[in-house]
Amino acid sequence: MRMVDLIEKKRDGKELTKEEIEFIIKGYTSEVIPDYQMSAFAMAVYFQNMTDDERAALTMAMVESGDQINLAEIEGIKVDKHSTGGVGDTTTLVLAPLVASVGVPVAKMSGRGLGHTGGTIDKLEAVKGFSVEISNQQFIDLVNKNKVAVVGQSGNLTPADKKLYALRDVTATVNSIPLIASSIMSKKIASGADAIVLDVKTGAGAFMKELKQAEELAKAMVDIGNNLGRNTIAIISDMSQPLGFAIGNALEVKEAIDTLKGQGPKDLLELCLSLGSQMVLLAGRTNTIEEARKLLEDAIASGKGLETLKTFLEAQGGDASVVDDIKKLPTAQYLIDVPAKESGYVSNIIADQIGVAAMLLGAGRATKKSMIDLAVGIELRKKVGDYVEAGEALVTLHSNQENVDDVTGRVYASYSITSEKVTVPTLIYKEIR
Amino acid sequence: MRMVDLIEKKRDGKELTKEEIEFIIKGYTSEVIPDYQMSAFAMAVYFQNMTDDERAALTMAMVESGDQINLAEIEGIKVDKHSTGGVGDTTTLVLAPLVASVGVPVAKMSGRGLGHTGGTIDKLEAVKGFSVEISNQQFIDLVNKNKVAVVGQSGNLTPADKKLYALRDVTATVNSIPLIASSIMSKKIASGADAIVLDVKTGAGAFMKELKQAEELAKAMVDIGNNLGRNTIAIISDMSQPLGFAIGNALEVKEAIDTLKGQGPKDLLELCLSLGSQMVLLAGRTNTIEEARKLLEDAIASGKGLETLKTFLEAQGGDASVVDDIKKLPTAQYLIDVPAKESGYVSNIIADQIGVAAMLLGAGRATKKSMIDLAVGIELRKKVGDYVEAGEALVTLHSNQENVDDVTGRVYASYSITSEKVTVPTLIYKEIR
Repeated sequence: MRMVDLIEKKRDGKELTKEEIEFIIKGYTSEVIPDYQMSAFAMAVYFQNMTDDERAALTMAMVESGDQINLAEIEGIKVDKHSTGGVGDTTTLVLAPLVASVGVPVAKMSGRGLGHTGGTIDKLEAVKGFSVEISNQQFIDLVNKNKVAVVGQSGNLTPADKKLYALRDVTATVNSIPLIASSIMSKKIASGADAIVLDVKTGAGAFMKELKQAEELAKAMVDIGNNLGRNTIAIISDMSQPLGFAIGNALEVKEAIDTLKGQGPKDLLELCLSLGSQMVLLAGRTNTIEEARKLLEDAIASGKGLETLKTFLEAQGGDASVVDDIKKLPTAQYLIDVPAKESGYVSNIIADQIGVAAMLLGAGRATKKSMIDLAVGIELRKKVGDYVEAGEALVTLHSNQENVDDVTGRVYASYSITSEKVTVPTLIYKEIR
Repeated sequence: MRMVDLIEKKRDGKELTKEEIEFIIKGYTSEVIPDYQMSAFAMAVYFQNMTDDERAALTMAMVESGDQINLAEIEGIKVDKHSTGGVGDTTTLVLAPLVASVGVPVAKMSGRGLGHTGGTIDKLEAVKGFSVEISNQQFIDLVNKNKVAVVGQSGNLTPADKKLYALRDVTATVNSIPLIASSIMSKKIASGADAIVLDVKTGAGAFMKELKQAEELAKAMVDIGNNLGRNTIAIISDMSQPLGFAIGNALEVKEAIDTLKGQGPKDLLELCLSLGSQMVLLAGRTNTIEEARKLLEDAIASGKGLETLKTFLEAQGGDASVVDDIKKLPTAQYLIDVPAKESGYVSNIIADQIGVAAMLLGAGRATKKSMIDLAVGIELRKKVGDYVEAGEALVTLHSNQENVDDVTGRVYASYSITSEKVTVPTLIYKEIR
């Protein structure tokens, strides 16, 4: 087999066999196939797409390029959730304890990541003492005992994907549905998921700006999962404005606690119930989606979800009293309201811009080495559809710096206000299974 | 400017500016832009094509990536001829002295090349003493004096093209009209051509198997030439069977001499007259193509073309008496007829197969280091349309090895014989200007 022939085959729109795809991924991982052939191949895939079988084979080849986490010792069906990312997405912090509280095991492997705010691990570290530095055995034992634990990513997972992603980034081949879908799914499968719930975001703040693209990506991932024997469903949710009110690490922990108390933002709660009930259903805990949702609503009403959060935090060394005394979370030195310049209805909040504003305050990492300030961030006071009086706060900045001119500039740039009433955007567009 | 953005621009089908294309080629030549970006770009070009302006800019950027030959000291319009290559193509050996004999300067820069037989230089070296190792000044002086000289390729011509071609070869991006056309045209322009006559081959023995592809390539090159101020025309000629009778170095020299004597193969003569009259016309020697053709026909009839060949060979140290005494050319030890197994009309000769057969005899180079045997080769005794009796020779092998089983196998594989009369294929399909 010669790589040049396989590039040509794909270029000409023919279907590659499983063996050919394995040859490519193995060769690329072991540096037998050079970057310049792989980038030409990626561009050919960009134009010629991949069949369902090719996508499944590519995903599995990337899974097999590195370590695979074995969660067999954990009782029950391990359902993982993945979000394609957005601004102010606090769902994992709510979902993990909530779903666990109804008896579904949540064995979460998480990272720090780059972006507007930290990753799930950074957020959890806003709780004093909390640590993800636990051994694999401790992790498994904790999930079996409490139904929930979070561990930092360990081992050499999907090295082929890491290498290919870095290459795609500099060769204009990121934006290819089969490549994005296999990248995400390979990571989930290598992490040991039996079943997968996907939250595919769409809108200005998401990678997939258009609903049609988001649908295509969701369908691609669902097909890969199902082809590889992992029950997979996807929800397509709105990211035209930030989700919930909080963008920032400690701020999002607080928001998650509020949500588990039944006092959180309506959109965040709704998305958590939607994703959570899919997880409960895929785990086989209930037979219908309605029962699953009812279980979760009850867990919020009864405080069972909140209790599980406490147990979970304590089990990993965290100060669980934070749940009852929110002031124990890191707080910023300055609370600065950004007032509306005119009265009217909020018609748009450019999620990306708000995200960058939060990063400027120090809530996220621009590079791997950046330090995160867990206390800072942005609290939205008005969302799309809300009426605001001139002078009333659009957002409150939680800042450790006094001069926030850059940040307020971004906030103003992201808010649009009109005189006419505005319809609140749909939160959940579609479910794809 | 960032290469990744330019790849994306091309990927999305947008037109690159001259400055952007210069940035790419300069960056690639100086190794600032890595192979993996260039190959992704080439694949994007494969799918999205290039506009006329982009093709001209790419060609010029490659010309400017290295040395450019200055032929200004040579009087008159320097017309270069280029063939896209085939099997048994002896045109240059005929055209150079023939066109020169009517007063048109032929300043030929030539190479050795890989293939079924050697390049023009190898063929000429079948004449004892002949050398292309002359200085640039000698070259120019010779053309001014005799109207014809051939020099080996010197200097660092179009390094960007060389680098890109090697990359395309291993990334399945060879077969792209804008990339092929700019590659060929950049070499001609860097070699100092004022005007260019192209012989684009089509058929089984050519790179462009289909007439439509050949037309597209011809049009692409003509447009580039004309856009860059080089009067360019193309002839599309048949390469479904080998041209003329001879495939081999000394054999082709003999065939060229025969043709200049008016005793050559009809198809070779016709193609030489067609290409030659275009050269004469572009050089401004005549006002019409008819006058140009008449001049060349007269030069053959009067022996002026043959005389010019002698002068040319002598001027570069060659033994010109070979022209009158063909036996002075290197000859092979064995002449072996390959007899027809059945009677009938020759309906096809797969040019490629015959070419490989000649190479097996030692007439061409498989790798840069291969040695060429100037004496060996294949003489076709029957061409498409000819009637052959069983037992009559299809070809005569000129071999220095006694065992030619491999070679005869190839010959039989390439010849098809039928009982029905066969039409001789068209030689010249089209002229594109």
